[in-house]
Amino acid sequence: MIIVLKPQVTDQQKEQIVQRIRASGLTPHLMNGVERVVIAVIGDERVLGKEVLASLPGVDEVMPILAPYKLVSREFKKENTVVDVHGVRIGEKKVVVMAGPCSVETLERLLLIANEVKEGGALILRGGAYKPRTSPYSFQGLGEEGLEYLSEVRRKTGLMVITEIMDPRDMPLMMKHADIIQIGARNMQNFRLLSEVGSHDKPVMLKRGLSATIEELLLSAEYIMAAGNHQVILCERGIRTFEKATRNTLDLSAVCVIKKLSHLPVIVDPSHAVGKTDFVAHMAQAAVAAGADGIMIEVHSEPALAYCDGEQALLPQDFKTLMISLKKIAGAIGREM
Amino acid sequence: MIIVLKPQVTDQQKEQIVQRIRASGLTPHLMNGVERVVIAVIGDERVLGKEVLASLPGVDEVMPILAPYKLVSREFKKENTVVDVHGVRIGEKKVVVMAGPCSVETLERLLLIANEVKEGGALILRGGAYKPRTSPYSFQGLGEEGLEYLSEVRRKTGLMVITEIMDPRDMPLMMKHADIIQIGARNMQNFRLLSEVGSHDKPVMLKRGLSATIEELLLSAEYIMAAGNHQVILCERGIRTFEKATRNTLDLSAVCVIKKLSHLPVIVDPSHAVGKTDFVAHMAQAAVAAGADGIMIEVHSEPALAYCDGEQALLPQDFKTLMISLKKIAGAIGREM
Amino acid sequence: MIIVLKPQVTDQQKEQIVQRIRASGLTPHLMNGVERVVIAVIGDERVLGKEVLASLPGVDEVMPILAPYKLVSREFKKENTVVDVHGVRIGEKKVVVMAGPCSVETLERLLLIANEVKEGGALILRGGAYKPRTSPYSFQGLGEEGLEYLSEVRRKTGLMVITEIMDPRDMPLMMKHADIIQIGARNMQNFRLLSEVGSHDKPVMLKRGLSATIEELLLSAEYIMAAGNHQVILCERGIRTFEKATRNTLDLSAVCVIKKLSHLPVIVDPSHAVGKTDFVAHMAQAAVAAGADGIMIEVHSEPALAYCDGEQALLPQDFKTLMISLKKIAGAIGREM
Amino acid sequence: MIIVLKPQVTDQQKEQIVQRIRASGLTPHLMNGVERVVIAVIGDERVLGKEVLASLPGVDEVMPILAPYKLVSREFKKENTVVDVHGVRIGEKKVVVMAGPCSVETLERLLLIANEVKEGGALILRGGAYKPRTSPYSFQGLGEEGLEYLSEVRRKTGLMVITEIMDPRDMPLMMKHADIIQIGARNMQNFRLLSEVGSHDKPVMLKRGLSATIEELLLSAEYIMAAGNHQVILCERGIRTFEKATRNTLDLSAVCVIKKLSHLPVIVDPSHAVGKTDFVAHMAQAAVAAGADGIMIEVHSEPALAYCDGEQALLPQDFKTLMISLKKIAGAIGREM
Repeated sequence: MIIVLKPQVTDQQKEQIVQRIRASGLTPHLMNGVERVVIAVIGDERVLGKEVLASLPGVDEVMPILAPYKLVSREFKKENTVVDVHGVRIGEKKVVVMAGPCSVETLERLLLIANEVKEGGALILRGGAYKPRTSPYSFQGLGEEGLEYLSEVRRKTGLMVITEIMDPRDMPLMMKHADIIQIGARNMQNFRLLSEVGSHDKPVMLKRGLSATIEELLLSAEYIMAAGNHQVILCERGIRTFEKATRNTLDLSAVCVIKKLSHLPVIVDPSHAVGKTDFVAHMAQAAVAAGADGIMIEVHSEPALAYCDGEQALLPQDFKTLMISLKKIAGAIGREM
Repeated sequence: MIIVLKPQVTDQQKEQIVQRIRASGLTPHLMNGVERVVIAVIGDERVLGKEVLASLPGVDEVMPILAPYKLVSREFKKENTVVDVHGVRIGEKKVVVMAGPCSVETLERLLLIANEVKEGGALILRGGAYKPRTSPYSFQGLGEEGLEYLSEVRRKTGLMVITEIMDPRDMPLMMKHADIIQIGARNMQNFRLLSEVGSHDKPVMLKRGLSATIEELLLSAEYIMAAGNHQVILCERGIRTFEKATRNTLDLSAVCVIKKLSHLPVIVDPSHAVGKTDFVAHMAQAAVAAGADGIMIEVHSEPALAYCDGEQALLPQDFKTLMISLKKIAGAIGREM
Repeated sequence: MIIVLKPQVTDQQKEQIVQRIRASGLTPHLMNGVERVVIAVIGDERVLGKEVLASLPGVDEVMPILAPYKLVSREFKKENTVVDVHGVRIGEKKVVVMAGPCSVETLERLLLIANEVKEGGALILRGGAYKPRTSPYSFQGLGEEGLEYLSEVRRKTGLMVITEIMDPRDMPLMMKHADIIQIGARNMQNFRLLSEVGSHDKPVMLKRGLSATIEELLLSAEYIMAAGNHQVILCERGIRTFEKATRNTLDLSAVCVIKKLSHLPVIVDPSHAVGKTDFVAHMAQAAVAAGADGIMIEVHSEPALAYCDGEQALLPQDFKTLMISLKKIAGAIGREM
Repeated sequence: MIIVLKPQVTDQQKEQIVQRIRASGLTPHLMNGVERVVIAVIGDERVLGKEVLASLPGVDEVMPILAPYKLVSREFKKENTVVDVHGVRIGEKKVVVMAGPCSVETLERLLLIANEVKEGGALILRGGAYKPRTSPYSFQGLGEEGLEYLSEVRRKTGLMVITEIMDPRDMPLMMKHADIIQIGARNMQNFRLLSEVGSHDKPVMLKRGLSATIEELLLSAEYIMAAGNHQVILCERGIRTFEKATRNTLDLSAVCVIKKLSHLPVIVDPSHAVGKTDFVAHMAQAAVAAGADGIMIEVHSEPALAYCDGEQALLPQDFKTLMISLKKIAGAIGREM
């Protein structure tokens, strides 16, 4: 259920409403909008009648949420959510670019690539310190050392940092080094990890699982929001299909579908989706034209030497060329970059 | 194998080469390029050594084609193929728009819709007279009557007509009424039908099957080209995946992959791919940004009354609005519309 | 709608009911059961009220069919359909085995293999004269010559013959040479072909398309039955998924699902499903244990020399060994072989 | 690389070989077979030549492992692995049955169901205390309380207990209460969790992910074995496809494929695969006929009241009936139950 409060509601009335909800064993989630305050009531709603709530002072309207996800849904919140990462605003007119190497390798190389992507127009640096690899014998990431390199490069370049968490026990390190915490595709339904990042105050980017439906993605986002953290960004990165010409099949329709069902911003990662340098630029263009709020691109100064996924990384100069065409497309659909 | 002839090759030399190939039980396919003539040799190449061919007068170079498809491949023909439909050129700078109702219903309605899409900028009218329907109890199309309506509207509007064939026995009617013959997704591997349209001189648009790989699509195109008809257009229209939020999953990466592997033009049909009006415009935009040579859009003046697929048809005014934004995106990537 | 007639209904009453249905523009399909006659009424049922029909003399009960397929559904016909192929009954207690080479190659080899599979216990010989091949450059089958070999071997061995049709124009040849006409996976939604085989009096085995849902398979069977031919056998032969360790993914649950929804017999083809000799026997065992009414197995005397699909063909002696274990499993679940 | 030691190798020689491997920065894994000791060498094998190893005293043969997984592969270990769970041996002639409710609900109900499945012939009790649920608002399991109920019922019935872990931080509780730790489909690539259970001495059953290839499943098992725990059981539980008639598509071919590639035992869970009571029994029969080493079945005394997945649970009496037919099928293929 959603409780829309009257514009002139007092703090005391608000407090009474919240207490009444809690007293019934339900959980209230407050969302302070520009004009109104809205409260989502989570739990078995049968214990507290719609009529009871509607009659409380300060309540304007009480409405059911039909979708299986609640806080995530457009029914709950009509305006787009903007996630503010120390001034970089994701979900507004400006299409945001995250770029960088697949994994953090050395401090020097990270700094080199960071400067290049910054020059190209990226505002956020991507780089994995913990890498989920299919084989236990592949490079698993530098771990804490990698996080420290990211912090260092952040200080030197001013770029925000996004990096992946794989284990709830690494949360303290993430709080220290990351500006956005990424949950990778393979952990989209690692519900304990979702609850863990949900209980902290740090933006989270949740990637769609390889075979996750859009509804499942939104329900996983609901885990994070239900735990209290409303700064959630969603990411389409390709799904697994029968087609093997690309690493995965980029499902760009997901951008429109999610934007219809939810108020959360959507990023597209064409690099992981197609898995081959040749196709990254065209799919980045398509993503912007489809209405994505941002894109995430792998860039590496020496792809052939990359510790992982070198075959999908753009060279810095190709990234810069791409940025020029992306800006034109963003302009063509009334956005900026 | 591909045999590249010398620029100054004589007709007599050409004839000798062709005879030599035929004498070995192989089939020669001539492709007259702007600068050079190229001959593809189809069959078990072991019967005729590369060295033998290379030594014939007029031959410049002999190269193997590694792809399983031959005439369709970029190896065989480097420049993009342009299919000329009575002056509408598909595969050049201009992005071509095909639009119209799912099925031909009445002459009046077809004419009404045709005028609208022409006004919006479409050059080709789509409309099915034979409809492949999952259920035998659904509307199966008007048949020959529908084809006659298409001819009539073509005369009145000057729009070219694309319509679907389902049975090789309907070929004479298609030769009379269609400008482009469409092979639908469900018939992509109806090899007899492919051979039939391949043995006539009329442009063919081949739609990708619901679960066809790109390689299989190209091999089906090869059936048409191997039968002698080189005017082939490919169409991505969504593939079947586990995701049910959209009717199919539009695989836009297919556009880039096909363009790398083949010289044939590629059209995208976002209407059948997403199956819901809400998402058609964004996916059309993404298709143009991804580099498609054209798009195919369902337009209906009264979607709620459409005999089929009304839920994915745009209203004429929405189609016109879309055309404006598509033109901007085409411009942003250096194309026209 | 289904109209169940009274046990003592007269021929005259029956005729009146049928005329009344026809007069309303609907199509009646009679099904003469052991105890009762049932009429399925196909068309827009709103033109003829349930009450009107129920009041006609000789009518016992009128019931709606909720499934999208009608004649195919268990609602329409509760008892299992048994397709009788000159005495070989498919759909009864006995699990029927179809075996033979992928394609007809030479008369000698076909006869050799036929004798082997007959010795092993097969009652039906499989062998393709028209082969749907992904590439136009692969062996396309012997055509009419192949059909004649099949007839010849049928005369000599007494085995029934199943072979594939690819083109409605080949129907006369099929009527002459085949005991069961097979519609292959790639033609499952070649609706013209379905209607063609539906308008003749010859058993048809319809294979599930690579990415066809069970509902779509049943609707394709409905095309055949709606055209008048009620001797339809369904075949599960693997679906296309992301997994590439096997050629396709054999969906054995389909056997139970189809048997719940429909009265038609179900055959399983493990050879095409797994595509590798190593796995055929285990999957044949699983198919019998899952309740299949028959299995179709590829057998070849010299798999390495087979014109197609040699990697999935069993050697005659391995086929015979398999038959012994299949008989035991059939016995374990109360069936015969 | 695999190093096969001579039958008469001394402990001192073995120790020298191990030290030599470690000194090169590689990791040795010893596997004490019935006749021979085999050492798998994991790491970049180029640092230590095959020739060097082959020349060490006690070494009989040195062979490369071509598969991407090493310890898991049949190349490394030819004989089937038998996992011994306090006397219940998984991977031998006897097909082992795991049964019980989806989730632990109350002590009384768990005990009731446990007695029923024991009577039917199950040796292992399944029941989730931590439940991975798509929605945060669904029942999440009783947690530690549920584990205590499992321990209690284990004491009273003598059944072994299998239960799922979702968080590496719960490992101490699992060591106390579980006989087999289950990794669910959604956590198949939760690599930190795999490493955690790999570093303890307790049998692990790893379920295949919804869209995991067999190769990926084996690589995830390799994570567990590489961390030192060789008591790994694999479980096929259905994959995600386009077909929606069943919850998932049970891929029974996976049983044969895995048994060819790996020495680990394979369990099949038909309940989660099909998701509907009607189809569980037939698929359990098929699983045994396909060669599974065990099956896992959901059983509930009151499915309609189950906290989760009631629509796929068998009633105790139906479970017992199924067990009788499974025993016959096991007998038909030379196994026991």
